[in-house]
Amino acid sequence: MCSKPVPREPLRRVAVTGGTHGNEMSGVCLARYWMQAPGELQRPSFSAMPLLANPAATAACRRYVGRDLNRTFTSAFLTAKAHPDDPYEVTRARELNQLLGPKASGQAFDFILDLHNTTANMGTCLIVDSTHNVFAMHLCRHLQLQSPELPCRVILYQLTGEESYSLNSVAKNGMALELGPQPQGVLRADLFTRMRALVAAALDFIQLFNQDAAFPAFEMEAYRTLGSVDFPRTEAGDLAGTVHPQLQDRDLEPLRPGAPIFQMFNGEDVLYKGASTVYPMFINEAAYYEKGIAFFQTEKLMFSVPALPALAPAPGPAP
Amino acid sequence: MCSKPVPREPLRRVAVTGGTHGNEMSGVCLARYWMQAPGELQRPSFSAMPLLANPAATAACRRYVGRDLNRTFTSAFLTAKAHPDDPYEVTRARELNQLLGPKASGQAFDFILDLHNTTANMGTCLIVDSTHNVFAMHLCRHLQLQSPELPCRVILYQLTGEESYSLNSVAKNGMALELGPQPQGVLRADLFTRMRALVAAALDFIQLFNQDAAFPAFEMEAYRTLGSVDFPRTEAGDLAGTVHPQLQDRDLEPLRPGAPIFQMFNGEDVLYKGASTVYPMFINEAAYYEKGIAFFQTEKLMFSVPALPALAPAPGPAP
Repeated sequence: MCSKPVPREPLRRVAVTGGTHGNEMSGVCLARYWMQAPGELQRPSFSAMPLLANPAATAACRRYVGRDLNRTFTSAFLTAKAHPDDPYEVTRARELNQLLGPKASGQAFDFILDLHNTTANMGTCLIVDSTHNVFAMHLCRHLQLQSPELPCRVILYQLTGEESYSLNSVAKNGMALELGPQPQGVLRADLFTRMRALVAAALDFIQLFNQDAAFPAFEMEAYRTLGSVDFPRTEAGDLAGTVHPQLQDRDLEPLRPGAPIFQMFNGEDVLYKGASTVYPMFINEAAYYEKGIAFFQTEKLMFSVPALPALAPAPGPAP
Repeated sequence: MCSKPVPREPLRRVAVTGGTHGNEMSGVCLARYWMQAPGELQRPSFSAMPLLANPAATAACRRYVGRDLNRTFTSAFLTAKAHPDDPYEVTRARELNQLLGPKASGQAFDFILDLHNTTANMGTCLIVDSTHNVFAMHLCRHLQLQSPELPCRVILYQLTGEESYSLNSVAKNGMALELGPQPQGVLRADLFTRMRALVAAALDFIQLFNQDAAFPAFEMEAYRTLGSVDFPRTEAGDLAGTVHPQLQDRDLEPLRPGAPIFQMFNGEDVLYKGASTVYPMFINEAAYYEKGIAFFQTEKLMFSVPALPALAPAPGPAP
């Protein structure tokens, strides 16, 4: 669990990154649009910088060209000596670390909001590193309150004890938006509009914080990753079945022991053998076949988030 | 319009091809499964051959690695002298032409059934070259009657006068199944089951024909391609908007003059300026962004399909 300190200064250096995965089109198109028309990302106390994180993968409309960029921001990759055979994304991660970091340094950006899509039926998800990240949890709460009619779930994606590896981990603070379902390489208007509204609301929250707002404590539900389950496969590694129709599209709904999880090509059902109810997520996500993941198991927990105090008030009234 | 002669002999050499596009997973997984367990493709009068059409693209989980295989079965590609710089799919098209053709020759396979998916909300579509292809139209009718509760539309994809270029054009006769919506690289159980049932019903129809069944004339609705419409783009070629929420997922429903078709990133709507109602298809298909196609326009027409006569009856009763 990473416990980020609550910011004691206004957040001035904020980046909004899209195209970290080059075929997740909401972020790709928003980043490109804002790079031409950055006014939408301005607030009175700061201007967020739009950035296309993986231009080569975006040009090829692929998740990545060499390796998954969003798994490459570890100290091993960022501090190793550059080599001509480094995959493109290793080089790009170092560039981004120079531009937005260096990671874990005082020079790093204050906040990175990283934009993602999934082919899974995840709706709107907010991915944070830890509920101990009080600032990010208050931002999540703010986003949830913007459109209370739409589910907007908080995900603790990183496994306990894992080193952070995502793009937003380069900044002092950050989070990812994950919207689905949307096929890779497709831009749906509904998700584009939704993501744009979420980014606007996130920048509004930072603006509120920067102008000395305080936020009370609250209780919040969040989903914490427990592990993952692979597809049934043949000895050669090919699929031998796929996600069961009764599990497909049921992301973050309860999965009870004994419920079907896979339908084999030979007609048999595979049942969930876990001992307790879990909440599966990223069910049948296209990008995870190669990672050996048919879905993640999560647990749903309630967390108490302490108040976010106001910044020290300015000596005089604002002009 | 290509007017295929009605077969005068039983169809013995039949192929079922998947993975012509390597990230359309229903066909990829069915072909792989049947190559291990071909019994499902046996009928009393023939055994259909399962085939993975584009193994390199399938291994990479991409539509193609060099160029779109399913646009490569033209005489220019098939008859040109081989060159070391030929894209993989040009070489593969020639291999498939040797195996299943040669195209337009007496040695060609009797029938190819080619399996496809789309990210668009097309439901079940049957793609044939022409309503003058009496055998294929009767097969379409048979498939429609198998599950009358599900829409199963007949598409005349090829533009009038265009040379045939698809894999199934290599055989004496053929058609493609197109099922959606399914993201690229994802295998949904519902579409897998549906495609498997359609293939079984198609083989059953060929078996009926081979055992001297006759089929009466009928009237049939079909959608004929008129042309295509590109996304709104910036001068640099980037998207400047996307498919309007009121058009998204409305494949093969009427689109009337004045209805919105695109939502621009600046908030404006683009209206359909055509003079008459059309039936859009492949709306927001991921693979067509690079082809400059946001959707195809089709017209819905009624066709009279003549009777399909029985093969000459065998001299004596079947054993």
